[in-house]
Amino acid sequence: MALVFHKLVSLEEALRIIDEKMGGIKPLGIESVPLHHAYGRILAEDVYARVDSPPFDRSTVDGYAVIAEDTYNADEANPAKLKLLGKVEVGDIPNIEIYRGTCVEISTGAPIPRGADAVVMVEYTKTEDGDILVYRGVSPGENIAQTGSDASIGDLILRRGRRIGPREMGALAAVGCSEVKVYATPRVAIFSTGNELIPISEKLKPGKIYDVNSHAISAMLKDLGVKVDFHGILPDNYIVIKKSIEKALEKYDIIVTSGSTSAGFGDIIYRVFEELGGVLIHGLKIKPGKPTVIAATEDNKLLIGLPGFPLSAMMVFMVLAKPIIMKMMGMQSFGEENIVKAKIPIRIETGKGRRHLIPVQVLSSAEGLIAYPVLGDSGAATTLSIADGFIDIEEEKQYLSEDEEVAVKLFQPLKIPSISIVGSNCPALSILLDEAGLWDAKQVNVGSFSGWRALKRGEADIAGTHLLDPETRKYNIHMPRKMGLENEVEIYRGYIRTIGLVIAKENPKNIKKIEDILREDVIFVNRVKGSGVRTFLDIKLSELGVGEPEKKIRGYTYEVKTHTAVASAVAQGRADVGIAVGYVAELYGLDFIPLAEEYFDFAVRKDRLSKESVERFIETLRSESFHRKLEEIPYYKTCPETGRKIFG
Amino acid sequence: MALVFHKLVSLEEALRIIDEKMGGIKPLGIESVPLHHAYGRILAEDVYARVDSPPFDRSTVDGYAVIAEDTYNADEANPAKLKLLGKVEVGDIPNIEIYRGTCVEISTGAPIPRGADAVVMVEYTKTEDGDILVYRGVSPGENIAQTGSDASIGDLILRRGRRIGPREMGALAAVGCSEVKVYATPRVAIFSTGNELIPISEKLKPGKIYDVNSHAISAMLKDLGVKVDFHGILPDNYIVIKKSIEKALEKYDIIVTSGSTSAGFGDIIYRVFEELGGVLIHGLKIKPGKPTVIAATEDNKLLIGLPGFPLSAMMVFMVLAKPIIMKMMGMQSFGEENIVKAKIPIRIETGKGRRHLIPVQVLSSAEGLIAYPVLGDSGAATTLSIADGFIDIEEEKQYLSEDEEVAVKLFQPLKIPSISIVGSNCPALSILLDEAGLWDAKQVNVGSFSGWRALKRGEADIAGTHLLDPETRKYNIHMPRKMGLENEVEIYRGYIRTIGLVIAKENPKNIKKIEDILREDVIFVNRVKGSGVRTFLDIKLSELGVGEPEKKIRGYTYEVKTHTAVASAVAQGRADVGIAVGYVAELYGLDFIPLAEEYFDFAVRKDRLSKESVERFIETLRSESFHRKLEEIPYYKTCPETGRKIFG
Repeated sequence: MALVFHKLVSLEEALRIIDEKMGGIKPLGIESVPLHHAYGRILAEDVYARVDSPPFDRSTVDGYAVIAEDTYNADEANPAKLKLLGKVEVGDIPNIEIYRGTCVEISTGAPIPRGADAVVMVEYTKTEDGDILVYRGVSPGENIAQTGSDASIGDLILRRGRRIGPREMGALAAVGCSEVKVYATPRVAIFSTGNELIPISEKLKPGKIYDVNSHAISAMLKDLGVKVDFHGILPDNYIVIKKSIEKALEKYDIIVTSGSTSAGFGDIIYRVFEELGGVLIHGLKIKPGKPTVIAATEDNKLLIGLPGFPLSAMMVFMVLAKPIIMKMMGMQSFGEENIVKAKIPIRIETGKGRRHLIPVQVLSSAEGLIAYPVLGDSGAATTLSIADGFIDIEEEKQYLSEDEEVAVKLFQPLKIPSISIVGSNCPALSILLDEAGLWDAKQVNVGSFSGWRALKRGEADIAGTHLLDPETRKYNIHMPRKMGLENEVEIYRGYIRTIGLVIAKENPKNIKKIEDILREDVIFVNRVKGSGVRTFLDIKLSELGVGEPEKKIRGYTYEVKTHTAVASAVAQGRADVGIAVGYVAELYGLDFIPLAEEYFDFAVRKDRLSKESVERFIETLRSESFHRKLEEIPYYKTCPETGRKIFG
Repeated sequence: MALVFHKLVSLEEALRIIDEKMGGIKPLGIESVPLHHAYGRILAEDVYARVDSPPFDRSTVDGYAVIAEDTYNADEANPAKLKLLGKVEVGDIPNIEIYRGTCVEISTGAPIPRGADAVVMVEYTKTEDGDILVYRGVSPGENIAQTGSDASIGDLILRRGRRIGPREMGALAAVGCSEVKVYATPRVAIFSTGNELIPISEKLKPGKIYDVNSHAISAMLKDLGVKVDFHGILPDNYIVIKKSIEKALEKYDIIVTSGSTSAGFGDIIYRVFEELGGVLIHGLKIKPGKPTVIAATEDNKLLIGLPGFPLSAMMVFMVLAKPIIMKMMGMQSFGEENIVKAKIPIRIETGKGRRHLIPVQVLSSAEGLIAYPVLGDSGAATTLSIADGFIDIEEEKQYLSEDEEVAVKLFQPLKIPSISIVGSNCPALSILLDEAGLWDAKQVNVGSFSGWRALKRGEADIAGTHLLDPETRKYNIHMPRKMGLENEVEIYRGYIRTIGLVIAKENPKNIKKIEDILREDVIFVNRVKGSGVRTFLDIKLSELGVGEPEKKIRGYTYEVKTHTAVASAVAQGRADVGIAVGYVAELYGLDFIPLAEEYFDFAVRKDRLSKESVERFIETLRSESFHRKLEEIPYYKTCPETGRKIFG
């Protein structure tokens, strides 16, 4: 039996072990930089004000510097009349002193002349024969920013460990910090390892995949503000990997690899890391992310071996590598916390024994935020670009119940999208949103039925739906009653799309009709349960009297999630036939045999009809320009009812 | 009467006018860049998958590729025995086909060989004489990532207008986007204007202030990801400013100035902008931020004239310039929304007619978040570095009531600090926190009494307090009863600090005792009402039988907020004497006449005593190392009770 992971540890244990073995994860050093080079760096000193801010009493308005007492009785009817002695401009050192009955013209930011204790705004004055009439009284100190009122010499301005952003730059400049001490920035070298990887610049070859991690992980490191160099793709070769990392250790503080961490057969990274330093962690009790290796050299350089699968690599980077690197950067707080509470709309099974990190999309409803899990295995690379954050399910939990409250760790501040559309996905919907200018629309693709549930729960403004009523053979208009939403929704007719058999170019297997999928020499590719197409197929099969289809159709259990995946399977010869919208056959250069036309409609919550974005959506659905674009898509067409209300 | 603003407009009007006059604010162009140069850029195209991800069916685990049916009855007692045909590694093109009763060794990520429809994890197998024993059944498709299951050719991956960060980089690489179309990045030139400004690298001269805005605004632009060049400080000179901006317009898309926008006397920026293009906005109905000028040239280059005062400049940048520039960058959503609901702990008066933007510090209590306004005039530069965000009070509102709910626009994701300390500030408290390693402590400096209120409301873990009981002449221990917190708090003895008269070096005015502040030739600097020192002074004055002190003490109405501000006023000769802790006299090189010793204690909520950070705080208060550091501060000392519980 092959080697398995040495000892799986939890994230907390991992952090503790690494901290302990490295004698405390510490910043790499301190350097002094001029303020204009300090942007993005981490303060390495507590900063105290070196000058007062402002450094003198100054006017906060344009007006006249006065002695407040002279104005106490002034009002619209009885202005105070003051003799104008002169003018103080910004940057001046005032050489005028005022006394009772006099005033001095003063600009915003100019120093208060001796004797004055308040400033009257110009708006409440008039000039009359060289004198100033004041129509409103001021109290002592009014419209004056006192010396040091912002910060006085010796005041603590910023504590160390803080990242220097715009607000910090402003504060440091105001109190005279022309140089600041900052922590040294770690230098990080990145490697991708694996015989299967080829760079994005090359053409994909059979058995190969694009190197995703170097791009994603480099960007994550850049987000942190470290210096990062990508050192290329290495083959699964112990000698090559060892030599490359050894060389990089001469120049870099941290080495991040991804791939070749899997314990089963290769285990190369483990062996290289053990050789070059000492492995501290081999295997994490999280999913995704188990095959992670962390080591440290004798001089405390850090070796981080991320899993090769992109989702795993990115999640492990976020939950483990990032907090360690932030500590090495001198950031005092472990990670920016950006957590929101949300409810999950469906039960999620996880199983005990490992902590689960599940990417989610977040929608808002009247009762708060809702977190939809984004499905995808650990090899998925696009999952995270759809997700807003992730939920973290502890080891002991076996499942989360529907409506259970969870904490979502956001990837970035939550944007409130102008419109949220949940339900079935369709390429034409993207075109519609584009035409409507609703680029920030939140789309959650969970199938027609779940779209209706999201409408009911108030999470969606609109649901894209193509559900056939087996009884009436009509599309969608049976749903409001079925869902108990008769008074809550309207349905707008969308468009018609043709579904049918997707087959290889020139039909080598001579497939003619749906019954052909039962043939011994034909491999079928199916859609997942709950999809419109699967429902359509199962109705057809039952009409044909086909029981136990999983035994009678080769590939019936080969389920894919999208129309494009059906076409892809046929295009690559993994299957001979599948059912999908005709559009994808065209996209993949395949043949297509139409089987049926279906209506793709839009159900809208009535309480969202007044939203500008929803109005725009419906208007666009009716627009000629959208109709023209839609008719350009193969196997799509509008109908006279397109954009009309067909229910509600 | 001087020129006033031409027409004040609201933020919404301003955005509408600018958009209209510029014929719609649009991105500046589109360029194509290789993926590895795309980090941080804004996508200018909708991206569709060019290859399938993954591009072939692959194993998600280390194990054995099998025909699922062969394993259906396998369990711990009755393993299925399969003939091992060979091995598939990642990067291989499998040339083995499996049939019933056989299997192939396979690594994570390797292509599934023909014939196999599932993979058994290595953990559930054993090798026996070259055969493989399988101890757990798998179902078809198990542990296989299907071709295109992440994304299939033709799937919409990302919409345009999205910033390319780590997750986007990963998705783009996975689907074969080696080049992406991105929007051109605006080039921005920054100027600071004003005769009063000097660069941070020089020594401050009388009447001059440091240029804060170039640092803060450059960093804000860098945060957005635009190219920014600072073009230096310009004097308030029409010709110089006009020529400099004119020249910059040859190379830059956006010019940002700050200063010289004030309408009252100079109005230079208005005239220059009018000359070079056409002024669209002159004056905003917001506070801070009124003196803002926006113009556009004929070729749609944007001129942004921010107010000179730092807080105004930064706020106007955030609420007006940022959304415009983001639109010019092609970002489809107007700003990252990062809004939290909070309650305000005190009534805030604003007055009608202008929208108010008030920086706040955010604390959490059992009932949710609390937003404490951070005081500071529009010239303040350090205010924003303390604040977590700001609240936006609409024009029509005159005030916010205590406990009113407000929306806080956060500057960055909210961090939950390990400890929150509200109340009176003291330099020794910073040393204590530093010693305790509580760098991320949230400190809200609002004075002793407000600290007690924050304790009562559950917003603070700890309050720093030095309140004298006029009856018992004891410090702080009368407060729990007064606040109705007898059962909720404990008080820990802090340390003793000496307060007294702060006077110029060598005492030129021969001040000896507190009564000297009544002298005709002496100017006093007072502290604000509610401060411990002010309370002390007023008690003393009443003991001395001094009524109407504002008439009898010169400078009694000259109120400052901090101990350091008292010292600063004396050091600069703005006042002859003030009352403060002796430490600041030392800091400013002033003389000091002790008047009294006061206890600075710490009240702790009992329900927070178990927090690790609170424990650490109290331990440190007791620690020898802190005591040593404290004794080094002039006029500070510990007492035998330091760190001991004196109440509760």
